[in-house]
Amino acid sequence: MENRICKLFGIEYPIIQGGMIWCSGWRLASAVSNSGGLGLIGAGSMHPDNLRHHISSCREALLPGRTFGVNVPLLYPEIEKIIEVITQERVPIVFTSAGSPKKWTSYLKERGIIVVHVVSSTSFAVKCQEAGVDAVVAEGFEAGGHNGREETTTFCLIPAVREAISIPLIAAGGVSSRASYNAAFALGAEGVQIGTRFALCKESSAHESFKELCRGLPEGGTRLLLKQLAPVRLVQNDFSDAVAQAEGRGASAEELSDLLGKGRAKKGIFEGDLSQGELEIGQAATMIRHAESVTDIFNDLTR
Amino acid sequence: MENRICKLFGIEYPIIQGGMIWCSGWRLASAVSNSGGLGLIGAGSMHPDNLRHHISSCREALLPGRTFGVNVPLLYPEIEKIIEVITQERVPIVFTSAGSPKKWTSYLKERGIIVVHVVSSTSFAVKCQEAGVDAVVAEGFEAGGHNGREETTTFCLIPAVREAISIPLIAAGGVSSRASYNAAFALGAEGVQIGTRFALCKESSAHESFKELCRGLPEGGTRLLLKQLAPVRLVQNDFSDAVAQAEGRGASAEELSDLLGKGRAKKGIFEGDLSQGELEIGQAATMIRHAESVTDIFNDLTR
Repeated sequence: MENRICKLFGIEYPIIQGGMIWCSGWRLASAVSNSGGLGLIGAGSMHPDNLRHHISSCREALLPGRTFGVNVPLLYPEIEKIIEVITQERVPIVFTSAGSPKKWTSYLKERGIIVVHVVSSTSFAVKCQEAGVDAVVAEGFEAGGHNGREETTTFCLIPAVREAISIPLIAAGGVSSRASYNAAFALGAEGVQIGTRFALCKESSAHESFKELCRGLPEGGTRLLLKQLAPVRLVQNDFSDAVAQAEGRGASAEELSDLLGKGRAKKGIFEGDLSQGELEIGQAATMIRHAESVTDIFNDLTR
Repeated sequence: MENRICKLFGIEYPIIQGGMIWCSGWRLASAVSNSGGLGLIGAGSMHPDNLRHHISSCREALLPGRTFGVNVPLLYPEIEKIIEVITQERVPIVFTSAGSPKKWTSYLKERGIIVVHVVSSTSFAVKCQEAGVDAVVAEGFEAGGHNGREETTTFCLIPAVREAISIPLIAAGGVSSRASYNAAFALGAEGVQIGTRFALCKESSAHESFKELCRGLPEGGTRLLLKQLAPVRLVQNDFSDAVAQAEGRGASAEELSDLLGKGRAKKGIFEGDLSQGELEIGQAATMIRHAESVTDIFNDLTR
């Protein structure tokens, strides 16, 4: 297949698994890479030593000729140590997000690492190209996790980014089925990053209760909240209802920060507290009804 | 072309022009129909006598073999009179929105009228099919005008509706370019309804200042506001800033209703008050940079 994303990463299918906190450890990443896509370890929920463990476990699980990457949110408190682990362990591919692409791109590329940055707007995609990244992920409003303040959807974002940059473009947000996979390419993408469907599959390290709740979520079952802090798409539950109520009465950023507290995503996604946890998932959860393996997903998407 | 939407309406291309308040009178509707699509007169901003005038003017302007329709928001205060005009004037096609498809579908169909209903959720699409409509328009979060509370985007909504209903499906919300036109079909749609691009073209009756402001709007230049009343996508201006501020401090529905007042959409879209008017447009405005005619748009989409 003459595809720039496949060539860039040396993979069979232009399918990247999003590096999601509490979901994508070495099991999920290696399963995706072994199926012909690109698996990413999500460093956002890992201390440096834990990341080192996941990198070596992923390497051991990889079939010959397969590769992998690490997703790094640049706002991470231990970012310098995380970057140190990545360079020491000679990770071949890094996806950065939640920060400026100028900060680490040159440093990583000088060490032979392929760098991709995640954006939610065209202006940021242009900055990424100027910073010298190898590819851009453009993520629409419907995506799970932290999203852009502009609220631009995948349908509007991908054609706009395609027009503005010449480097390879990966679409994210709402890509889950064969139909949306094809639509992403029609919009101008050369690859897709899939989060939600992989977060809910068997190899994901998320809690089974979280996965069951999210599969077949009703439309409107997630909301973009906490826009004053950093916008995040959350499943409607007791915690997100409390956030919505606080926002509805005009709560300040400090109040919202106190309400959020620490460790809520771990509590929800990893420990399965469906009432008080911070449950991040994309709108595409509506379309996912069964517990499936990574192999099932690849068979469906590439059939 | 073996396309159910083309067959249903007797048109050449499966392209429908959204029936938008203050934009789509007889000039726009007849130009679209004469280009091979389906033009809709937007009754939402017309008194019954004015609608009658637009219907007869549209008929006079139509080339032989071309058809047209009327879009009717069912919450319209003079709805009974509007329906009377439509049946008296033997309008062949009616698109209904903002209300239950059970209310008027049988009445219109008994009089030989083709009925299409506009929805923003899969559950409502199923209700439309049960009510006997001929086709459904499913409209995503990125669309201009009044949108669903679920905030489901076109990318997530169309595949879900496609799976749930068997009658013809038209995608709306973010469809503006050849790329998004093709993507809508990849998602499972059989036709597209385009609002924003037609609202900003030469034949639209919107004020030139409104059109100029909207063309090339920055990403994030529109917001979904007034969710407590009826959610509507508005261009950022002094009026929408005031609404956003009121919502941010927890204003009640009554306060918001007072702030909105009456006639703001006319003031903004038709009279060109860019500061205090209610300026409804879709996210796709970002991609539209030039003043173009309906013919230009069809040449681009069908080339």
